Amino acid sequence: MPQLRLALAQVNPTLGDLAGNADLVLESCRDAAARGAHVVAMPEMVINGYPTEDLSYRASFIEATRRCVDDLATRLQADGLGDLVVVVGHLDTYAGTVPERLGLPKNLPTNTASVLTGGRVVARYDKHHLPNYGVFDEFRHFVPGQETQIIQVGGVDIALAICEDIWQDGPSDAARAAEAGLLLVINGSPYEAAKDDMRLQLCARRATEANATLAYVNLVGGQDELVFEGDSIVVGPDGGIIARAAHFEPELLIVDLDLPAATAPMPGPETRFGGLRVAREVITAEPFPAYPPEPPPPMPQRWDDLGERYQAMVHGLRDYVRKNRFRSVLLGLSGGIDSALVATIAVDALGANNVYCVSNPSEWSTEHSKSDAADLARRQGLHFDTVAIAPMFQAFQDALQLDGLAEENVQARIRAVIWMGLSNQHGHLVLACGNKSELATGYSTIYGDAVGGFAPIKDAPKTLVWKLARWRNELATLRNETPPIPEAIIDKPPSAELRPGQLDTDSLPPYDLLDAVLDAYVERDLGSAQVIAEGFDPALVERVIQLVDKAEYKRRQYPPGPKISKRNFGRDRRVPITNAWREHL
Amino acid sequence: MPQLRLALAQVNPTLGDLAGNADLVLESCRDAAARGAHVVAMPEMVINGYPTEDLSYRASFIEATRRCVDDLATRLQADGLGDLVVVVGHLDTYAGTVPERLGLPKNLPTNTASVLTGGRVVARYDKHHLPNYGVFDEFRHFVPGQETQIIQVGGVDIALAICEDIWQDGPSDAARAAEAGLLLVINGSPYEAAKDDMRLQLCARRATEANATLAYVNLVGGQDELVFEGDSIVVGPDGGIIARAAHFEPELLIVDLDLPAATAPMPGPETRFGGLRVAREVITAEPFPAYPPEPPPPMPQRWDDLGERYQAMVHGLRDYVRKNRFRSVLLGLSGGIDSALVATIAVDALGANNVYCVSNPSEWSTEHSKSDAADLARRQGLHFDTVAIAPMFQAFQDALQLDGLAEENVQARIRAVIWMGLSNQHGHLVLACGNKSELATGYSTIYGDAVGGFAPIKDAPKTLVWKLARWRNELATLRNETPPIPEAIIDKPPSAELRPGQLDTDSLPPYDLLDAVLDAYVERDLGSAQVIAEGFDPALVERVIQLVDKAEYKRRQYPPGPKISKRNFGRDRRVPITNAWREHL
Repeated sequence: MPQLRLALAQVNPTLGDLAGNADLVLESCRDAAARGAHVVAMPEMVINGYPTEDLSYRASFIEATRRCVDDLATRLQADGLGDLVVVVGHLDTYAGTVPERLGLPKNLPTNTASVLTGGRVVARYDKHHLPNYGVFDEFRHFVPGQETQIIQVGGVDIALAICEDIWQDGPSDAARAAEAGLLLVINGSPYEAAKDDMRLQLCARRATEANATLAYVNLVGGQDELVFEGDSIVVGPDGGIIARAAHFEPELLIVDLDLPAATAPMPGPETRFGGLRVAREVITAEPFPAYPPEPPPPMPQRWDDLGERYQAMVHGLRDYVRKNRFRSVLLGLSGGIDSALVATIAVDALGANNVYCVSNPSEWSTEHSKSDAADLARRQGLHFDTVAIAPMFQAFQDALQLDGLAEENVQARIRAVIWMGLSNQHGHLVLACGNKSELATGYSTIYGDAVGGFAPIKDAPKTLVWKLARWRNELATLRNETPPIPEAIIDKPPSAELRPGQLDTDSLPPYDLLDAVLDAYVERDLGSAQVIAEGFDPALVERVIQLVDKAEYKRRQYPPGPKISKRNFGRDRRVPITNAWREHL
Repeated sequence: MPQLRLALAQVNPTLGDLAGNADLVLESCRDAAARGAHVVAMPEMVINGYPTEDLSYRASFIEATRRCVDDLATRLQADGLGDLVVVVGHLDTYAGTVPERLGLPKNLPTNTASVLTGGRVVARYDKHHLPNYGVFDEFRHFVPGQETQIIQVGGVDIALAICEDIWQDGPSDAARAAEAGLLLVINGSPYEAAKDDMRLQLCARRATEANATLAYVNLVGGQDELVFEGDSIVVGPDGGIIARAAHFEPELLIVDLDLPAATAPMPGPETRFGGLRVAREVITAEPFPAYPPEPPPPMPQRWDDLGERYQAMVHGLRDYVRKNRFRSVLLGLSGGIDSALVATIAVDALGANNVYCVSNPSEWSTEHSKSDAADLARRQGLHFDTVAIAPMFQAFQDALQLDGLAEENVQARIRAVIWMGLSNQHGHLVLACGNKSELATGYSTIYGDAVGGFAPIKDAPKTLVWKLARWRNELATLRNETPPIPEAIIDKPPSAELRPGQLDTDSLPPYDLLDAVLDAYVERDLGSAQVIAEGFDPALVERVIQLVDKAEYKRRQYPPGPKISKRNFGRDRRVPITNAWREHL
């Protein structure tokens, strides 16, 4: 059987930074060539970053991308890497004609994989299955490819596919029918909890269906609300795992494969599978000279269920800060669990020296809140300052004489003005500390605690916030470090401290019940009757659903934050603000 | 030729209010029956409101809708309206099977037209062309219908279509092939400037293609960022206009039509046109007894280009307030043109008694700002109050010692805290007064002047704001009323008044130039080279594009407001926040 040394480059591009991303590709190719690789696969849209959204309508952006890909081929050749076969994902335009359709961008954008070798682009594949659900809008942004692409390298037929292509039926059958030895899939597959397990199963199933080895390369890093976890994988035709790359970190994964020699006529006559024309391109028909294969790298350590979610938040925040050219963040440290977790994530993402916390005690702030916040700041070594809000509060109340909820909210908003003032003065990115339970129920003050440029825990329900805090402390203990979050913060009953003796449970059901109902209503989209059928109290269910429905306007103005669940408040769940529909009992 | 009296019910449903919307249908049917109509057509999704977005995934919502439609048929019969043929649009689920696809909602939602008569639903048509561009996401929310539906009423074959179906090629040919006498199109077609002219041309073209009379019924009213302008139309097979309904207002448009007798076999064998099966349902094969036709109603007065945009803002605001159960609005009246126009729109939408304005002068506020604001308040008779911000500003500065931009922004944010405090205390909806030029360039203070639940002029560039103000004053003059906006407000150079002598032109290019560049870059999505090729100064173009690209994070947190342009900042333009792509010169 012909041998092939394959490099999967799990990298972290920046959306829109064509030059920087091309450099990332070049660097990966140099490393891969130095390690003897024949083929280097880069992730989906590595040149542009993913997702490009409506930038796919911008002709100037696509033209610049095409120039960038052509230049990359030339640079690879000039650098003595012309023998490498490099597969890169990028935005392009469809080369054929498609039926006229209203709303179709004139330039017919495609989500493309180009094959670079010998200083040229020698083949291309356009993504065929365009996801248009969850966070994806690819039917809006691309036209689907109409061709399967087989490239022959070292006497092995390699079928190309892009991400969604293997989540839908078809391409693996086409690869089997074309008798490809390797199905190479480039991906921009965003993180959500436990998706890695699903992904491994899927790769195994498609490899078996294709009767081919399957190599899957994914992005790492954050892009607005999405985080890519890497988790690149190679599985054999029997579905058995051959190699797997790091979780959330960049890696150049190199595997030696013995693959069946190409059997189909090459270049053959035009053939079709499942309506798709099969394009074939011979790059090298002869097997590479035999060499001693290296054993696959050891399987990397993987994060557990809590760890992976925590990592997604850390990487999501780190990349939002870095890619938007901030250096530091600022948040209000209240002494409660939410801001404690956000501060800890920020320190893990950016280092304590880049994290600025402010305590803004009011008349109703408890002593333990102030001392717990100070304790956390000491443990983590972050910047900590105190600005009391009493003088501003007095000035507003002299003018407005507010009471009730209005009086409570004004305190939260004074804090926001302080944070934003410090942000404007010193250039810190403000972090919002709201959790998903709070976002769901609208239990926050809009333009108060809800302000910020990024919201690291917005997709974590409150019960998960506690679990993550305990998990992070346990990790510290395992590492013989001081637990970053004071136990008192984890143990105390949650309170907004906007009036004397206030507790969250004055306004909300206990969080374990609340989060269970939210899981049914928000994540699983059940109607009230179905939620109740799961055993919840009808009055509780109705109350929670009403809160969720009424808070949509607040969620629309909330900052972005990393998606970690199957259905985040963002692209995953798009509901009207004006909505008189009420689930009835 | 058989006669048919057709009623087009241009109504304003509320999203999710199934019972209220069913009552609207019933009321229209009573009126139509009293006026002798045979067929009543209601707009797209009239039962649910439009667009339902991800509510189409909610099984409980679809089931409630189906019950509502069945009940409606029963109620029509019980009310003695069982002979009427009533076409209503609503959410439903697909009755057939479709190929499995990842992300396809299990319940297979459809955008459906049901035909109600004799106490039952006798036929249905599922929208075939699903728009997935601009503000539309229907490929996400629905599965496409696979059948053309012809109903025979009074011996006339009527083909059904829904909105996008006539914007794409196909259905008019199918109607022609099926030899339908009438093509009945129910619509939820959102307003944008000059779309009515396009719509009339389109209807004329499709009628000619179908060789049939075409009746087009549209929604009116606001739903979040969309406004529906009505503009229901009937055109003959020669493309000539027969009748047209009011612009932006509800109307029951009744027309008497002489239509060709059905010629195709009925019920015929299954036939197909363009891949679609043709379903036929005979309701009444005999022509109705002859009656003296009434002349079509006189053509309604239509708003001119400025007037229609102003009306869209008025109706968008009015419905957002009403449908979200607010009674009153509050805004900061600065003495500048933006807040002056918003106040005027609010008074036109809600009446002066429901509009509360606050002046929040600072140290840098000019005398003319204060007096101009007071003059506007007097002219319009709205509530007007003054809360100076000096004491709060002093309290913040004592604690924070901010300078530069940070010091400017704190003033804008103090105002926001005041507005939100008054909103919380008294239940007013706060209006944000930003215009599209400001949103584009980020020339606003986030959590300052950008706060609010609704933003009536967010899709109007600054140059249009001035034109609309002048237009509104001229309308008042024509009506022998006092012009609502003091000339001094329209004539003065714009300033944020956050530091002494500040003018917008210190930070921005002159608005006529700015708006022209924004039109090229935002509305038409040109790259910088193309914009410059239109004759603009390269440095100016680069500066404007940089401002736009950097302000995306602010736009994401901006309140919703009525779409009046081809491409609003909202569903129409979806770009990443994290985006290193810069148009180069």
